[in-house]
Amino acid sequence: MRVLVIYDISDDDSRTKLADDLKRLGLTRIQRSAFIGNITAATVKEISRVCSHRARGEDDIVHIVPLCDYDWRKSIVIGKPMNEYGGDVQVV
Amino acid sequence: MRVLVIYDISDDDSRTKLADDLKRLGLTRIQRSAFIGNITAATVKEISRVCSHRARGEDDIVHIVPLCDYDWRKSIVIGKPMNEYGGDVQVV
Repeated sequence: MRVLVIYDISDDDSRTKLADDLKRLGLTRIQRSAFIGNITAATVKEISRVCSHRARGEDDIVHIVPLCDYDWRKSIVIGKPMNEYGGDVQVV
Repeated sequence: MRVLVIYDISDDDSRTKLADDLKRLGLTRIQRSAFIGNITAATVKEISRVCSHRARGEDDIVHIVPLCDYDWRKSIVIGKPMNEYGGDVQVV
């Protein structure tokens, strides 16, 4: 399944470590605080666990959003994505 | 249709103005740089236009992602959302 992970984490160290965790778990960075990837349900659970561990600040928040192929293909990207990634999204 | 708008905009003024634009266009803030809302196709076009106008920095990037009800309901939220918003997403 494809998931989009977006986060607001105030502590620099925790934020950097979460980015490293998400890369290690097979996700691809598309913005400074947004990752996407095709992963198993077990990996979603692990991502949820890791995010809970890193997002300890009072206002920290993470959204883990499943994304079906149709929606991802219909996405609009403005600017230059941070990384190459799959899907024929519309870059404007 | 529901859309999720996430952005990386380096210039503080442009970033603030984009947030104001997105609120004005009926979206709800869920993170510092993430908004969601149920809007018309015409409003999606307007959002795309506004984002292109605000995202002028070399590394600026915006994703406008359609999100079907099923995917949004299956989303996992870690932490406290910035605003009240619809949907019975799973907050952990």
